Amino acid sequence: MAYEYVGKPYARRDGVAKVRGEAKYVADLLTDDTLHAKVLHSPVAHARIKSINVEKARALPGVAVVLTHEDVPAHVYSGTGHPAPEDTPRDQRIIDQRVRFVGDTVAAVAAETAEIAQKALRLIDVEYEELPFYLDPHDAIAPGAEEIHEGTGNLLGDTVFDYGDVEEGFKQADYVVEDTFKTPIVVHTPMETHVSIVIPETDGSITVHTSNQCPHVCRRILGVALDMPVSKVHVIRAEIGGGFGGKQDTVQEPLNAALALAAGRPVFLEFTREEEMYYGRTRHSVHFKVKTGVMKDGTIVARQMDALSNTGAYSSHGHIVLMNAMGQFSALYPVANMHYRARTAYTNSPVAGAMRAYGIPQLTFATEAHMDNIAAQMNMDPIELREKNLIKTGDFNPHNNYRVESCGVQCILETGRVLTDWNNRQTVQVTGDKRRALGVACFSYAQHTYPHGNEMAGARMTIVEDGSAVLAIGSSEIGQGNDTAMLQIAAEASGIPVEKIKLVTGDTDVCPMDWGAYASRQVSVSGMAVKLAAEACKKEMIDVASVRMKELSENLDVRSCKIVDTRSNAERGDLGDVVFDHCYNLEKPRVISHEIYYSPHTNGITVGAVFADVEVDMGTGRVDVKKIWSLIDAGTIINPQTAEGQVHGGVFMSYGYGLMEQLLLDPKTGKILNDNLLDYKMPTILDMPEMEVHFEQTHDPHSAYGNKSLGEPPAIAPAVAIRNAVRLATGINFTEIPLTPQRVRLAIAEKEREANV
Amino acid sequence: MAYEYVGKPYARRDGVAKVRGEAKYVADLLTDDTLHAKVLHSPVAHARIKSINVEKARALPGVAVVLTHEDVPAHVYSGTGHPAPEDTPRDQRIIDQRVRFVGDTVAAVAAETAEIAQKALRLIDVEYEELPFYLDPHDAIAPGAEEIHEGTGNLLGDTVFDYGDVEEGFKQADYVVEDTFKTPIVVHTPMETHVSIVIPETDGSITVHTSNQCPHVCRRILGVALDMPVSKVHVIRAEIGGGFGGKQDTVQEPLNAALALAAGRPVFLEFTREEEMYYGRTRHSVHFKVKTGVMKDGTIVARQMDALSNTGAYSSHGHIVLMNAMGQFSALYPVANMHYRARTAYTNSPVAGAMRAYGIPQLTFATEAHMDNIAAQMNMDPIELREKNLIKTGDFNPHNNYRVESCGVQCILETGRVLTDWNNRQTVQVTGDKRRALGVACFSYAQHTYPHGNEMAGARMTIVEDGSAVLAIGSSEIGQGNDTAMLQIAAEASGIPVEKIKLVTGDTDVCPMDWGAYASRQVSVSGMAVKLAAEACKKEMIDVASVRMKELSENLDVRSCKIVDTRSNAERGDLGDVVFDHCYNLEKPRVISHEIYYSPHTNGITVGAVFADVEVDMGTGRVDVKKIWSLIDAGTIINPQTAEGQVHGGVFMSYGYGLMEQLLLDPKTGKILNDNLLDYKMPTILDMPEMEVHFEQTHDPHSAYGNKSLGEPPAIAPAVAIRNAVRLATGINFTEIPLTPQRVRLAIAEKEREANV
Repeated sequence: MAYEYVGKPYARRDGVAKVRGEAKYVADLLTDDTLHAKVLHSPVAHARIKSINVEKARALPGVAVVLTHEDVPAHVYSGTGHPAPEDTPRDQRIIDQRVRFVGDTVAAVAAETAEIAQKALRLIDVEYEELPFYLDPHDAIAPGAEEIHEGTGNLLGDTVFDYGDVEEGFKQADYVVEDTFKTPIVVHTPMETHVSIVIPETDGSITVHTSNQCPHVCRRILGVALDMPVSKVHVIRAEIGGGFGGKQDTVQEPLNAALALAAGRPVFLEFTREEEMYYGRTRHSVHFKVKTGVMKDGTIVARQMDALSNTGAYSSHGHIVLMNAMGQFSALYPVANMHYRARTAYTNSPVAGAMRAYGIPQLTFATEAHMDNIAAQMNMDPIELREKNLIKTGDFNPHNNYRVESCGVQCILETGRVLTDWNNRQTVQVTGDKRRALGVACFSYAQHTYPHGNEMAGARMTIVEDGSAVLAIGSSEIGQGNDTAMLQIAAEASGIPVEKIKLVTGDTDVCPMDWGAYASRQVSVSGMAVKLAAEACKKEMIDVASVRMKELSENLDVRSCKIVDTRSNAERGDLGDVVFDHCYNLEKPRVISHEIYYSPHTNGITVGAVFADVEVDMGTGRVDVKKIWSLIDAGTIINPQTAEGQVHGGVFMSYGYGLMEQLLLDPKTGKILNDNLLDYKMPTILDMPEMEVHFEQTHDPHSAYGNKSLGEPPAIAPAVAIRNAVRLATGINFTEIPLTPQRVRLAIAEKEREANV
Repeated sequence: MAYEYVGKPYARRDGVAKVRGEAKYVADLLTDDTLHAKVLHSPVAHARIKSINVEKARALPGVAVVLTHEDVPAHVYSGTGHPAPEDTPRDQRIIDQRVRFVGDTVAAVAAETAEIAQKALRLIDVEYEELPFYLDPHDAIAPGAEEIHEGTGNLLGDTVFDYGDVEEGFKQADYVVEDTFKTPIVVHTPMETHVSIVIPETDGSITVHTSNQCPHVCRRILGVALDMPVSKVHVIRAEIGGGFGGKQDTVQEPLNAALALAAGRPVFLEFTREEEMYYGRTRHSVHFKVKTGVMKDGTIVARQMDALSNTGAYSSHGHIVLMNAMGQFSALYPVANMHYRARTAYTNSPVAGAMRAYGIPQLTFATEAHMDNIAAQMNMDPIELREKNLIKTGDFNPHNNYRVESCGVQCILETGRVLTDWNNRQTVQVTGDKRRALGVACFSYAQHTYPHGNEMAGARMTIVEDGSAVLAIGSSEIGQGNDTAMLQIAAEASGIPVEKIKLVTGDTDVCPMDWGAYASRQVSVSGMAVKLAAEACKKEMIDVASVRMKELSENLDVRSCKIVDTRSNAERGDLGDVVFDHCYNLEKPRVISHEIYYSPHTNGITVGAVFADVEVDMGTGRVDVKKIWSLIDAGTIINPQTAEGQVHGGVFMSYGYGLMEQLLLDPKTGKILNDNLLDYKMPTILDMPEMEVHFEQTHDPHSAYGNKSLGEPPAIAPAVAIRNAVRLATGINFTEIPLTPQRVRLAIAEKEREANV
């Protein structure tokens, strides 16, 4: 289907301002009367605060406020950035008397300058009563362990999902393959750390400028944390310098609001890079046991997985992340017999939360490495093994019982086979000092959280008197191109060109409620709200023109701000004239404006495969990725230019996940050993391989224009595709990432030792 | 009828912030990167610019932009702040090659500081070709006069409205009384002068922070003046430090926008007090001839009026002001035979525009002084003469043919008679050096501009998840208490208390369209939009509760955020719980939000009478007002506290009009002789007499809660009530205001001379 605005490479609405440095981030909103906040963090991993003395800090000239656990509301809240308020335990206080990880909040200061605030922190005397601490989830849930949150046994969740008879399935199978895998803790590392300015208003309300991805959710959480009416919390999302899920949670706003309310002045709180790494949420480290029963022809008859996730010191998204993984575990390769057990443990490590693709990169690392291990054991082509078992259009998704209505992953594998010259190059060089091979990995990802989560998006379109328009949306631009995509959808549905639509976004007082940027939900859920609002406006514009032009509505359309006769395609008049008269007539002046809320009732999948061409230096263990092909079925691509950028960014992130990134905790102290960008290695543009993107454009009938999720899926599979290539090249079953030269070289050495024994 | 929120003395929503100095006016929004603008004004009253040299000014370090007529769009626009774009001639350019009054724009500079901009002005060389100029409208419309605007003959409008046979009426009359009157030019003198900051945005749009009373109208005018799509003009009204109609017009924003667009930087333009007096619009000076035929019993049988108004150099509201006067001329004392001719002339005096009560103070000065002159000639009680002829409930308003459905003016006169001890004190002391008497004057005022003007107001109410609410309105708080009144109406209609409703206002991107603050229309028109939006929300809240509670909607109500059973008045639950569930349920999460546009189809009248107790010092001519009683039927009073304040302000303004204020033009040059607050005398609080306010609360069935207009009416009649008292005290027929000591003393001297002849 040919569209006028959808599918075209529009330049980003926010692009020029960002390139010129004119876009306003939170830090650009600082005013002279704003206080600067600094946080005193716990130096110990688990302790009760026996005493805290802030007298000297309070006496320091220039200090406006010092807050400790004695000064903030006693009740608990959850800062988890999703709209299911009861799904996550309220286990946080703004400042607690107990610290649960190195870096936990002990006190906070607001002062005239950041330097004074920092100096004041050093004047605070704290006496800790230390408690046993745990960094590994197995230790934390062991009997007799000290409880990090009382009454939990340190187990945040324990869920089993199964169908069929998995033991019977394994009995039938010709092969039963079992593996264990572990993924590292990594961090989002946005260019902009978590940051907010909270302004206490004269009327008792607060204005919160923040880089939060989910302003309406942040508003609710602030209402709970501060015990204020929600309408008195005004959250304004500034431009976001990278979020990736780390800014989905309301991490620092309640503390900053408490400071601002106590000071009666605006307060600015910006995490340092080190604080960001301690505090800005992490990706859950997960231990997987996975077991699969396969028939000789490659048909999988039973799958079993046991996942134990480390959520760190507070729940955040905690167990829901593994629940999400469960969804795709059951969806991508449907089998008759399945058993999945997910457990999530509290530990005393930094708090894990939402991070791009929300559990699926961990899951997919385990399952797709496992698939390659199975193929190796069966001596079967990894592509063929996958094709035999992949979900297809028309199948029912076993996880949610919705029929899969668009699924291009089979085509994608065949396309990838051709693009990569797979049949000739899969194991092109598997001996000698430099080994080279191709790896592949498939993935699937849902459109949003329904039916497990509540889904709602709002949009309001108002036609201005000259036929231009204002579109107010609740969804969030966080660098992914959301604003431009929404404008294209609005233009397509209204007939008003992209450049004539002004966008209003990020302001909870005036933007329709929407849960915000996560779950790659916006183009799907929020995009539909935009389409419905724009369609309602178009219908009313046509009806108004119909009366004015004495022509049946069914014969009229709005195209490029012209009223057009659909029979002849002849222009009948200017939209501006029609709207102007509608607005300025004497008898019934009216404005065309529609505010629409939308909630979906099905949930399709985005699918794809990633291929990696990898060279391994056996002498150094260095993995040199020559090229990555990302092949994605994200339905209709709204904007090919921003979509390709999104894939590049995802590959970037997963490349770091597979090869470089890991947050290392000192087992003796719980401190992060690499809490800075010198020691925490993440890829730069110079590290990146050649990337090729292929969109397999199927049509999802439940989205605005056949589009599907694209935000997170590109970040899922590159890591495991690289791992699979490295396994083929080296013959070593790598079960942990990142594949640092050290890890690869040690494994090669171990294999060499074994060969020599 | 008893209301829960309407009729109660709520403290102003904007009060505390204003008192504390925390409210944000435009000047509070200055940022470091903002340029400062200064305007070069014409020193001559009428000229063509032969040449203008700005090279030296442009070369001055720190000057960013210098604009002359050569640099701005050539097309013309009208800056008139009303929603009838075609009713006012487009006779302005941002900068024209011709100047039409002393002070007209010749050039403008934007520079790093105001001082540099001011210095740059002095470096601009201009050569003028002077033209004849006119300050009196009679001279301007005389044959052969130089045309100020080509093709107009300097006559902006000439309208006749009549019915019956006025000549026949005069023939029947027992008495025919004829008078001439003249009113002065006065200025609004808001504490804050006209001011704006225009920010050119990266996407080509502009953000305009302004003190304009009518943001949506300002947006349209800027679109026309700058030839930009309307949606690219974002107008944000800051707090307004007094408007009084002077900030209804878009006076300086197009010039400031032209500077900002040329500079590519924000520009701040704030008029000095002197500029404000030249530039900030004035009240039209009007020459009246009025003639009335009366029967012996006091029944008026014919009325005739000829009004000639001076609109100054540009049309602004020009002729519409006299047309509005025509409406109340025919309404207050309906007669069988009437003739009204209104002419409005261009002159080379400062531009007259909208000013509080829009022509009615001028009209009422003439007609109510005339009524007293008639009563004197007939030796009849002035109250009795009025009562004989006043319009009554049930009458048809001859001006618009609507039946008058609430009119308490008869009661008011009798109440005033008692309150003032009129029968004993009307002429308590009319001999000697200190004379004392009571004066009275009646007035009427319409609710809004329909059916002569387009009327529309918008409001959007959104219920937040905890049962609090956000109300977005297009109407403007300009010091009159609008915001608080709208909150009371919203609370009354929704059942959500005032303190739980957050207000959003003044922002054209996100507030529903509304024509803004003029014509005292907001409580009537905008208030109804607010009521309808709040009622729609309440209905939906009840319907949602009905499903949740399994109870018929008709048995439920929302009161103080509780769901109440209307039969027992028992609480059935908390509104917050109902709304929260509506918003966060899994299957159909929704937000309750209604955006409503309203336009009226009738137009009632606010009526009243003012009594003045006056002592005249015959030796000095000083008029000492002892007390003023304002008796007003403004229907239901929404907020008695702010309403009384509004009346006090109106009395203040009319007191100055009657006794002190007049803009004096030098006939030789056209320059203002008193363009500053030392020489232009306006009353201070120390000048004010005792004031007593009496509200006669009738019920207007077409407004939200029976309320009627109250913004402007209090400013109509005090001046003429004072004049009538002075006439009774002195026996002198004063035909001009202000009654300065000089004017009164000269008239007394003249009378003494005549008596001595």
